[in-house]
Amino acid sequence: MPRLAIHRLSMAHPGDLSALEALIARGEVRAGEIRAVIGKTEGNGGLNDFTRGFFTQTLMLLLASQTGETPAALAARIPCVLSGGTEGALSPHYMVFSVSDEAAAGRGLALGTAFSPVTPAREIGRVAQIEAVVAAVRAAMADAGIARAEDVALVQVKAPAPQAPDPDARSTDAKLLMALSRAAAAVGAGVALGDIPADHATEAALLTDLSLYSNRVSISSGVEVTCNEVVVFGHADGWAEGIVAGVAPMADLLDLAGVQAAFAAAPGEVLGVIAKGEPDKTGAIRGHRHTMLGDTDIDAQRHLRGALGAIVAAVAGDGRVFVSGGAEHQGPPGGGLVCVFARSA
Amino acid sequence: MPRLAIHRLSMAHPGDLSALEALIARGEVRAGEIRAVIGKTEGNGGLNDFTRGFFTQTLMLLLASQTGETPAALAARIPCVLSGGTEGALSPHYMVFSVSDEAAAGRGLALGTAFSPVTPAREIGRVAQIEAVVAAVRAAMADAGIARAEDVALVQVKAPAPQAPDPDARSTDAKLLMALSRAAAAVGAGVALGDIPADHATEAALLTDLSLYSNRVSISSGVEVTCNEVVVFGHADGWAEGIVAGVAPMADLLDLAGVQAAFAAAPGEVLGVIAKGEPDKTGAIRGHRHTMLGDTDIDAQRHLRGALGAIVAAVAGDGRVFVSGGAEHQGPPGGGLVCVFARSA
Amino acid sequence: MPRLAIHRLSMAHPGDLSALEALIARGEVRAGEIRAVIGKTEGNGGLNDFTRGFFTQTLMLLLASQTGETPAALAARIPCVLSGGTEGALSPHYMVFSVSDEAAAGRGLALGTAFSPVTPAREIGRVAQIEAVVAAVRAAMADAGIARAEDVALVQVKAPAPQAPDPDARSTDAKLLMALSRAAAAVGAGVALGDIPADHATEAALLTDLSLYSNRVSISSGVEVTCNEVVVFGHADGWAEGIVAGVAPMADLLDLAGVQAAFAAAPGEVLGVIAKGEPDKTGAIRGHRHTMLGDTDIDAQRHLRGALGAIVAAVAGDGRVFVSGGAEHQGPPGGGLVCVFARSA
Amino acid sequence: MPRLAIHRLSMAHPGDLSALEALIARGEVRAGEIRAVIGKTEGNGGLNDFTRGFFTQTLMLLLASQTGETPAALAARIPCVLSGGTEGALSPHYMVFSVSDEAAAGRGLALGTAFSPVTPAREIGRVAQIEAVVAAVRAAMADAGIARAEDVALVQVKAPAPQAPDPDARSTDAKLLMALSRAAAAVGAGVALGDIPADHATEAALLTDLSLYSNRVSISSGVEVTCNEVVVFGHADGWAEGIVAGVAPMADLLDLAGVQAAFAAAPGEVLGVIAKGEPDKTGAIRGHRHTMLGDTDIDAQRHLRGALGAIVAAVAGDGRVFVSGGAEHQGPPGGGLVCVFARSA
Repeated sequence: MPRLAIHRLSMAHPGDLSALEALIARGEVRAGEIRAVIGKTEGNGGLNDFTRGFFTQTLMLLLASQTGETPAALAARIPCVLSGGTEGALSPHYMVFSVSDEAAAGRGLALGTAFSPVTPAREIGRVAQIEAVVAAVRAAMADAGIARAEDVALVQVKAPAPQAPDPDARSTDAKLLMALSRAAAAVGAGVALGDIPADHATEAALLTDLSLYSNRVSISSGVEVTCNEVVVFGHADGWAEGIVAGVAPMADLLDLAGVQAAFAAAPGEVLGVIAKGEPDKTGAIRGHRHTMLGDTDIDAQRHLRGALGAIVAAVAGDGRVFVSGGAEHQGPPGGGLVCVFARSA
Repeated sequence: MPRLAIHRLSMAHPGDLSALEALIARGEVRAGEIRAVIGKTEGNGGLNDFTRGFFTQTLMLLLASQTGETPAALAARIPCVLSGGTEGALSPHYMVFSVSDEAAAGRGLALGTAFSPVTPAREIGRVAQIEAVVAAVRAAMADAGIARAEDVALVQVKAPAPQAPDPDARSTDAKLLMALSRAAAAVGAGVALGDIPADHATEAALLTDLSLYSNRVSISSGVEVTCNEVVVFGHADGWAEGIVAGVAPMADLLDLAGVQAAFAAAPGEVLGVIAKGEPDKTGAIRGHRHTMLGDTDIDAQRHLRGALGAIVAAVAGDGRVFVSGGAEHQGPPGGGLVCVFARSA
Repeated sequence: MPRLAIHRLSMAHPGDLSALEALIARGEVRAGEIRAVIGKTEGNGGLNDFTRGFFTQTLMLLLASQTGETPAALAARIPCVLSGGTEGALSPHYMVFSVSDEAAAGRGLALGTAFSPVTPAREIGRVAQIEAVVAAVRAAMADAGIARAEDVALVQVKAPAPQAPDPDARSTDAKLLMALSRAAAAVGAGVALGDIPADHATEAALLTDLSLYSNRVSISSGVEVTCNEVVVFGHADGWAEGIVAGVAPMADLLDLAGVQAAFAAAPGEVLGVIAKGEPDKTGAIRGHRHTMLGDTDIDAQRHLRGALGAIVAAVAGDGRVFVSGGAEHQGPPGGGLVCVFARSA
Repeated sequence: MPRLAIHRLSMAHPGDLSALEALIARGEVRAGEIRAVIGKTEGNGGLNDFTRGFFTQTLMLLLASQTGETPAALAARIPCVLSGGTEGALSPHYMVFSVSDEAAAGRGLALGTAFSPVTPAREIGRVAQIEAVVAAVRAAMADAGIARAEDVALVQVKAPAPQAPDPDARSTDAKLLMALSRAAAAVGAGVALGDIPADHATEAALLTDLSLYSNRVSISSGVEVTCNEVVVFGHADGWAEGIVAGVAPMADLLDLAGVQAAFAAAPGEVLGVIAKGEPDKTGAIRGHRHTMLGDTDIDAQRHLRGALGAIVAAVAGDGRVFVSGGAEHQGPPGGGLVCVFARSA
């Protein structure tokens, strides 16, 4: 029966996987058992953030040297979800999720993965992408052995962005395409979980119908992936006990109680944290104007990650939290969500 | 006997004082009773942040139109302490401190102000500036009627930065001079409060002897002032009751308990918040690397304000908190301090 | 008969008009004869650039103190066209255009101004704005005594941007509204000059029909103005000789010959330079990829101004050149235009 | 006898070496004959620019797959000099320098390389680094068969920056260490060429004695190298004809004639361009204030590259020019230098 393990590791720079290499050398992690990697690299988190590609290349080379598989084959079966941007209190780090086999029986935290087919530029932000994500999330749930949507704690997706302008794309604005890709993946995951009605999941609803959201979906997008890479976490029979996940929505950026609720829902030693948020599009938080959206010098998502990251890190007492901006359809509008993984006490 | 009032007002842009103009028009604030203004404008907070000068010019024009004094005369007697940078959750706002006269007797929050003589570029970051601030803080305490240093809640100083390169200045690096100016003012204020031994207050100690700090001192520096402008807050006999101030240090950027302690020390409706912090110079927070100091694209102080501002705002439930970076000798190294003003319950 | 004079002045910061104050004090410029001011301030040039408002407020206060008019009355009759952003080699400066009366007869460089009615947010980027600019340009030509469109050297417009979100605006994206405002003003001016066919001047054409452009139109937009402020330059009878203007289009950002052509067209001592350009929207210049449009850290217009500014300044041998990004419908797509004012030899 | 070839190639992103891969596949370049790579990647060019490391890793993997050598062995013998930052008109590209053998005799452009021993953090910006570079430049000259210093056209060095804080380093300021490393390497190369007197090459002179410079030295520094990697270009007997190099200093940033002189000195089809420059430390260019050094939002080197890059690209008519900031002791103070490689007509 499978047992999930989570190792949270620091990096000195985006090409530094030495901490994982050491764990493998010491036998604490077996390269062949790694199922997913989720991490924060210290780029700008935007279209021209290449720290994600650098990390991914380095990771796959390391695993290739250990497993004998090619980097391309590994990249095609191990989701590597990276979010650039470690503004403020955030610390560059990555969580390695591995699954070993053991004799015991129980009910514990399960992990499943799936990859959609390659999503060409013309499908990004369109119904084709939504449907591809619905199918991929269902496949990942099946992979995890999670039968019921209510048992899913979190769906994490890395969604593609076009590497070059494409006349068939929904927009010529590359940054908008990144947002549309996140939106389509979020809505697709929400539909798969039953949190968003399938008949509302239209192209027109993306980025506009803010009533559509799931509190259990976290999406990043970037040019370093060409399909939708899905990781599902949930509680399932047939998985070893020992790790719990707690999730809670944030009503707005200042929802300290929401953050604390996620930690309270996963008591024990914290193994990792995933959070999403966004600059409130109304231009105000609790009635007071913020300046994130109109700043010419600092990208709004960099503002957001610095702010949300600090709040989550302050509650965690640790800067190694995965905080990502661009929470379209992920948690309440202007707010977001927090997921905490902990070793159950 | 004097009664201190605090009005916290929003601005639509750095030249927008309409909220204060309306209060004056309605008779809620008398222009002649305004003693100090402390606020956050939405610039970059650095050397080339002109939002502070814009706000100050507009404020003094408004008060001049109401009082008949010239803008220059008003600027010479009313400290206008502005910190640029409303990253993340912060909201542009200003606190207007006014003092009216009333018959009642009691013990309440007192305010005093003082201006040092003009500080030429060659004195910035040198003993001359330290000594000028010691004298100005003592003058402001006397102005407030605060006899004992232990009754001081907070000293706020706006310290000068050179408007042009000066061969006699301690450094040719304008950004370093801004930091030295903050350091000298902080050490001077700390000496005046008895929090820093006078014989340690040397030029060499500035920015280097991190053991020297006060938990009750907050400094900003900028090219828009040419001397050290001091505002002292404390509890004193002979001032009307009604407002309390609570102060607490932050051990590091993630010291959520420290922030909460400051709010607990000033129970009641929050009227204003002042906080200082800095990126930990060791490059790590609680053992985990942060990336604020090595970022070529976002200034370290902008990172810091976004992070600290979000934590303080989350506790306050309000983005209108005065959070300023550059906490040299202000609170523990790598940490800072928080001061809360509240209407006593 | 009128004589145009151009004074090009430096500023130490955006609130520093001391150079103009000195000229007025020495009698070299009469405050009442100032007809327009065009300048570069050292902000970021974007939505949250307040250096423009700071400069304008300071200018109008200075002129008010000299003329007895109110700042508001002066701002309503003297166009103050500021472009933020002095990246790279650019130097903060402003050109003061004044018109005196003298006895001589001739044909020289003429100046005329006009203001459209206030443009509400809902009209920005719509036909209403286009038409308002057509009318204002014709009024400014009449003011200058320029009868024929072919005699116009340059139309400079400062177009409005909404100061706050407006549900009736064409877009909720404030940065897009700034671009639409420039586009509408450019197309309107192009129609007035006969460079753009009136029947192509539709709302849908703005930012999309790149075949519509004028090589004699330069537009800035910003929140500090609420209507379209127009300055027209051209050669006309009845104006004193002595100043010439030369204009040339730039085919692309690297069109050094185009820049040189503008200087050749206005031989003599250079009195001022106005240039517009834009990052090529195809993502390449002469077949080679540029990275201006996809950078998360530096705004594309800041990239553009730094690059174009350096080329124009290198030809001029002087960093005091007015270079502005956002050349929608101003010069060839991906290129722009340069206008040189010179004292005729 | 050796023949130098230069291939200038574009990249779609910093991990894209497909253009070189294609040349190798077509037999136009033999992997084993590659002697050096010099290129511009689209990072921020500062301490936290990881595009250089990403490119280098990818390059060495490609060459390893072709040559059978390990990536580490290749990196230890092939200088890979990358400068981050393609601001404005610059286009990401790399020049591949390869040397083949052929029967003909002549005198042509020669290339030689050398690596200093590993430079620990404590030696950066100190005499040890200067001396190491002197020796490495001499070794590279010998490698090229260039006997006389006057025959050297250009020395290009990639100098190390510490990857982590080191208590023994000359400064705790990582950005300053990068500048000191460039300065030490520049002075070392200048000494080796006889352009800087050896007895002036002291630690104290670095960054301060601006009279010490060479017009034939170009330095980049970065955390991705741990020693001083040197490439020398010059004209020498025993090398095949066909390529020429022309070098000229720039007196200041606006020295268009200087740029044109370098192109005139290497007539023919341009194969590559290398330029260095710096923001004038006096804060002015030809008497007019620039704002590069005091900007909190855009790093001074990013300003510089955007400006200088545009001027050089405008003269070249091509954005694929290697332009790098940080010209300490490289060309006249406030200016810089330009080197052009051309296929001789």
